[in-house]
Amino acid sequence: MNASIPIDDLELGFDFPALPGMDAADIQTPCLVLDLDALERNIRKMGEYCRAHGMRHRAHGKMHKSVDVARLQERLGGAVGICCQKVSEAEVFARGGIGDILVSNQVRDPAKIDRLARLPKLGARIIVCVDDLDNVAELAAAAQKHGTELEVFVEIDCGAGRCGVTSTDEVVALARAIDAAPGLSFSGLQAYQGAAQHLRSHEDRKAKLDVAISMVKEAVAALKTAGLEPMLVSGGGTGSYQFESNSGVYNELQCGSYAFMDADYGGVLDENGERIDQGQLENAFFILTQVMNHAKADMAVCDAGLKAQSLDSGLPVIHRRDDVKYIKCSDEHGVIADPNGALKVGDKLRLVPGHCDPTANLHDWYVGLRDGKVETLWPVSARGKLY
Amino acid sequence: MNASIPIDDLELGFDFPALPGMDAADIQTPCLVLDLDALERNIRKMGEYCRAHGMRHRAHGKMHKSVDVARLQERLGGAVGICCQKVSEAEVFARGGIGDILVSNQVRDPAKIDRLARLPKLGARIIVCVDDLDNVAELAAAAQKHGTELEVFVEIDCGAGRCGVTSTDEVVALARAIDAAPGLSFSGLQAYQGAAQHLRSHEDRKAKLDVAISMVKEAVAALKTAGLEPMLVSGGGTGSYQFESNSGVYNELQCGSYAFMDADYGGVLDENGERIDQGQLENAFFILTQVMNHAKADMAVCDAGLKAQSLDSGLPVIHRRDDVKYIKCSDEHGVIADPNGALKVGDKLRLVPGHCDPTANLHDWYVGLRDGKVETLWPVSARGKLY
Repeated sequence: MNASIPIDDLELGFDFPALPGMDAADIQTPCLVLDLDALERNIRKMGEYCRAHGMRHRAHGKMHKSVDVARLQERLGGAVGICCQKVSEAEVFARGGIGDILVSNQVRDPAKIDRLARLPKLGARIIVCVDDLDNVAELAAAAQKHGTELEVFVEIDCGAGRCGVTSTDEVVALARAIDAAPGLSFSGLQAYQGAAQHLRSHEDRKAKLDVAISMVKEAVAALKTAGLEPMLVSGGGTGSYQFESNSGVYNELQCGSYAFMDADYGGVLDENGERIDQGQLENAFFILTQVMNHAKADMAVCDAGLKAQSLDSGLPVIHRRDDVKYIKCSDEHGVIADPNGALKVGDKLRLVPGHCDPTANLHDWYVGLRDGKVETLWPVSARGKLY
Repeated sequence: MNASIPIDDLELGFDFPALPGMDAADIQTPCLVLDLDALERNIRKMGEYCRAHGMRHRAHGKMHKSVDVARLQERLGGAVGICCQKVSEAEVFARGGIGDILVSNQVRDPAKIDRLARLPKLGARIIVCVDDLDNVAELAAAAQKHGTELEVFVEIDCGAGRCGVTSTDEVVALARAIDAAPGLSFSGLQAYQGAAQHLRSHEDRKAKLDVAISMVKEAVAALKTAGLEPMLVSGGGTGSYQFESNSGVYNELQCGSYAFMDADYGGVLDENGERIDQGQLENAFFILTQVMNHAKADMAVCDAGLKAQSLDSGLPVIHRRDDVKYIKCSDEHGVIADPNGALKVGDKLRLVPGHCDPTANLHDWYVGLRDGKVETLWPVSARGKLY
């Protein structure tokens, strides 16, 4: 511990897990760490894939909520911009200089619509999704009020069963309404098959995407007939992007988790039955935790519990350790089975969380590591941006 | 929406869900709301109970992470101070003027021990738990370095099976070591039976607490014999406090969830088989959410998903609505079964989350409501304090 580095300043209340230049051994736990080499490889790999397949990549910023990661995705991966789910996230990305932002969600609350319509003033292209004619009118009124232009995607529910319209007639009717509305322009389709992403088998995902792609093709053909050919057809995630990019109809991907990966996505299998975190994409995102108790001989307790990670997709996996296993999680503690007494108090472990998105949202900082040193400290810029 | 209230300031990046004086109808969702009347009744009720039973109440601050709620617990409920789980939480409470703070956990990392040992300089009494002789020496060295005094509890594992020692001999050996260590004073026992709190049946909880109380009695007797009678015997939670307070050996309770309540604790049954959220304690803590999509006739989608709540103890319950049900949760959306089409876009609902502690930790603000108006906006002061 280098005492000259002000990790905590009692007077000011600052609280950093690490500062650039620090040895990895001195990082305060629990915190999020990024393996910068692995992160950069994932980002470059997706960038190369998209170039080879003629796809735009609009990386999903709801996953990392970080302006710095978004910029890295633009710089190293050729990403065209960001999608996100909330207006308050879009504000963070627009303020951070991201120029092409899609809110891949409906915005219905009047105050949120007002905020959204002000956003183009920051210099960003702003796109939002609709699935309801009333919403078209609401958005148009707000854009006119602020003298801005909002681009609008019609959202198709292509199998996820949540938001979006399900018939081609509705798609065309919405596109016509958007096209006719002052302050709005119709620029594409949102067709993300969220229910397919985490299915383990390649065949199961393919079956879901076959249905989705067929719906999207029908919608695009009808829009062309109506003189409203969509500029962008957007969708695809880490579990499905190969299908959208070979569909002949999508031209924009929205992969997010590919950059970090997590235990749940790691278990998705490719067409050869291989885990996608073995070779294709790497774990770049970890919770660094420390053993803080070993009062029982065969059980260690670490300092990363429910407040350091989301359990919605299961318990975390201890990275590259087969001898110990994270078996139980409470508010501030993780219980680790340590049958051989391999761990001692103070030992640090990397956890691959079950689900990266809601885990990132629990933390204020990413600690970027390379060659055993802290290289960067990036804020989770849109952490807690729920509105 | 009162346009004169700067809910969001694009220039500064502030982001409040509400401001005092606002109508409840204008609150931005999703956010945490507190029913101040219910909160105050819960706090007064616990205060009266503790007075009637001669117990100190050290409210658990890990639950609310709020200096403002802690002060209310002192003022209305006669709470003596706070317990919390992390040094960084203790820093927040000490800076906020809470004078008696227990870190009900072990602190082993050298940097964290250093921070802990500096804390008494802020004017607070600081107590910490140990279950390991090495830790006694570490804490003593840090207290001497900073010229402070730390009080120390010996933690007994009285059934939760996580941290803490399990034999009376170990308790006495640790108490002797603390008593002999410069900079430290032995002031009591930490004996919280965490595994009993959420058991549904009164009899099951009683059986667990009978064992715990018997262990604690044996330890206290041995400490008396050794000339080390503990000043404080501390433990008890919302699911068990009646047992500790009638044990004749505990003199301090650590209830936390009682103030807010949640869906999981609500289902705990008292000695008459009644849910403890029916009469005894009330739901005072909610996620306010809004319907943002109703593209399907029998299904509404609300704006509170995984980033607005923790699912570790199950899905949230929609407060006082039997006609609609929260059935599925994804990152930013909640799916609500609405078989009769009772909901429309813009409708607001109160969700009782499954587990209050990790849900509170996801948010920056508590919106305090009374009589349909926003009365207070309290920061979740120790949100994200993981160190």
